[in-house]
Amino acid sequence: MFCALLTVMAEKTNGVANPGPGSGELFQYFRDQVPKTRAQLATLTGLSRSTVGGRLDALVELGLIASAGGAHSTGGRPSSLFALATESRWVVGVDLGARHATVGIADLSGKLLVETTQDIEISEGPTIILELVISIVRDLLAQKSLSVSSLLSLGIGVPGPVEHLTGKPATPPIMPGWDGFDIPGWVGSRLGIPVLVDNDVNLMALGERSMAWPQVDDLMFVKVSTGIGSGIISGGLLQRGAQGTAGDIGHIQISGDEVKACHCGNHGCLEANAAGPAVISSLQRSGVAVSSTTELIALVRQGNIDAIGAVREAGRKIGEVLAMSVSMINPSVIVLGGSMAQAGEHLIAGVREIVYLRSMPLASSHLAIVASRAAQQAGVIGAAIMALEHSLSAENIDAMLNQTELSE
Amino acid sequence: MFCALLTVMAEKTNGVANPGPGSGELFQYFRDQVPKTRAQLATLTGLSRSTVGGRLDALVELGLIASAGGAHSTGGRPSSLFALATESRWVVGVDLGARHATVGIADLSGKLLVETTQDIEISEGPTIILELVISIVRDLLAQKSLSVSSLLSLGIGVPGPVEHLTGKPATPPIMPGWDGFDIPGWVGSRLGIPVLVDNDVNLMALGERSMAWPQVDDLMFVKVSTGIGSGIISGGLLQRGAQGTAGDIGHIQISGDEVKACHCGNHGCLEANAAGPAVISSLQRSGVAVSSTTELIALVRQGNIDAIGAVREAGRKIGEVLAMSVSMINPSVIVLGGSMAQAGEHLIAGVREIVYLRSMPLASSHLAIVASRAAQQAGVIGAAIMALEHSLSAENIDAMLNQTELSE
Repeated sequence: MFCALLTVMAEKTNGVANPGPGSGELFQYFRDQVPKTRAQLATLTGLSRSTVGGRLDALVELGLIASAGGAHSTGGRPSSLFALATESRWVVGVDLGARHATVGIADLSGKLLVETTQDIEISEGPTIILELVISIVRDLLAQKSLSVSSLLSLGIGVPGPVEHLTGKPATPPIMPGWDGFDIPGWVGSRLGIPVLVDNDVNLMALGERSMAWPQVDDLMFVKVSTGIGSGIISGGLLQRGAQGTAGDIGHIQISGDEVKACHCGNHGCLEANAAGPAVISSLQRSGVAVSSTTELIALVRQGNIDAIGAVREAGRKIGEVLAMSVSMINPSVIVLGGSMAQAGEHLIAGVREIVYLRSMPLASSHLAIVASRAAQQAGVIGAAIMALEHSLSAENIDAMLNQTELSE
Repeated sequence: MFCALLTVMAEKTNGVANPGPGSGELFQYFRDQVPKTRAQLATLTGLSRSTVGGRLDALVELGLIASAGGAHSTGGRPSSLFALATESRWVVGVDLGARHATVGIADLSGKLLVETTQDIEISEGPTIILELVISIVRDLLAQKSLSVSSLLSLGIGVPGPVEHLTGKPATPPIMPGWDGFDIPGWVGSRLGIPVLVDNDVNLMALGERSMAWPQVDDLMFVKVSTGIGSGIISGGLLQRGAQGTAGDIGHIQISGDEVKACHCGNHGCLEANAAGPAVISSLQRSGVAVSSTTELIALVRQGNIDAIGAVREAGRKIGEVLAMSVSMINPSVIVLGGSMAQAGEHLIAGVREIVYLRSMPLASSHLAIVASRAAQQAGVIGAAIMALEHSLSAENIDAMLNQTELSE
């Protein structure tokens, strides 16, 4: 609370004339998408009805709030309802993986209007990939007859660690050429809007929560594919940690007789034992013909006993680490996503087996361990949600109102 | 942000007349204890100088803000400074352990005015122990010529899990008779002030941060004594998790040839391998005459090689779990406290050895692993800080102003 206030202080000392605090905060009452009357807002905020009226007018003029018909009334003339104008402005969400780029345009509620996915090679480097992203954004806008000026901001998820304050990738192992690249500056200067960057798994946690668990404040999203990582939401907030590496569970050491070398330089890491490539190579050693996660999933679906057993064993290893997470951060929902989670219930069954065995009853009694519902869309929705959290904050709405006032 | 607003909404719909939002928020600007002028506050808040003046008057009348002399001026007559009246009201902090009760009275900055510690047996049950606590509070008040009416609230830390919303202990293993006991109701009805309860280690994290690391947003406090537990502050906020068990690291399974049974019913828990009793019994098996943590610490200080080796090995085991914490939550400071941390650098050396070996460079490059500076006072200061966070919140200050207005 206090930290948030200090941020406001910093923003408000820049000398810009201020129409009085409150419009940005008033706007927040509309984000639940329930239309409200002036009288309801006056009761909710403790502000006078005329103050509410003035602030509403400013928000309506800005276009973010619109009249939404009349309220049912117990008598007399119906009062006007106001609501979030969900399609008045838009945000872009971008989910970059090692091999794919998903780009979507979302409305002010976070709902996707349009999205598309293209194959890429992230190792081609930032300028080639980001040029492509920008051209996809322009195509999608044209397709929906929207202009760049209708965009509030753009969020990007990348498959590697990101320095949160600057949005620069920090020595990302599978993104050669991206280390320290100023993604927000490069993309922002081309599109003329604020650009926010985070690790892809953090954004999947945001996207999954927004789509499937909006009431849950403590959620962990675990992505299991070529690597293993997680995004942690605690107390309703995405946790990034001191260096932005919170949730980096792939390199936690697990038990086991065989201590496998990991590409990180350590031994016995979870990722070296339970990610897709580890499962595939253990099956190959048992003589099973399999060379990709897609083939592995196909084998599991065909009922291949070896494949099912290997996936379940991977689940148990992931469960070792998640049992620790349950003790450490006490989530109420653990979501499993990523390509390996497509192996149906087998991966999750292994996870549950160990988590419920090892966790303390109080921590696991109300714990759900489930498959991702947002699935392939988790990242792109989460990127849009991050953009919205920035653009629709009370501070930012106030700044938009100031700009409008100054330009008049 | 949105959740906080919903709380405000809920509080403001109870029909009580509201002097307009803002006094409680204006008050927050004084919590850094830097005196400010009306003009500075107008700039900081964007409010008009007359609005600031009105809200300041209300806060001064409430007694929480006071005039603090004149500001240095570049010319003309000096403007009046206003500051937090740190000694205008008080909060009580209570730290209950298995064998001790520490009670202190703190000012509005969290500084202890007076404190005292008495031996207790927590197993005597809530009514005996809490009667004692209340009599100590009354003694301390009398000693400082303060009245109960000068108290804003009271915070209590207990050595077991607590259901955060109700303040009731939840099946605490070492607190027979306390399960589900309504501590806030019982103490609150006797003293007539709000009472807040949390796990002792969570409060130690708050106390340590307040005393030694006020600028740090990601801190983990690890208590090593008869048991092992931790309090986690992430993004500047204490993390309790879905059931209030976040930080419960004592029952995370560690590796090792010998799988020791733990009192929790599981095997191989950290606590069963590295807490005080485990270290003592391993030394006893090696023929060392030691029967308490006090004797163990004395042996270490005398340079007994076996004792030093056993403590360092316990540090390594704790380090196994803390390496996972570093991957999972990425703190910038890990603080070691509790009786075993009094074994000087030996415990911490063992922890560091494993944490720096196993952690990813990005997560551990700026990580400090240190001994507690607040030491025995961490719990009682943290309990006072929790009470202040409640009583000095914007919502609560606004409610106090409403009450004053209604009673006039």
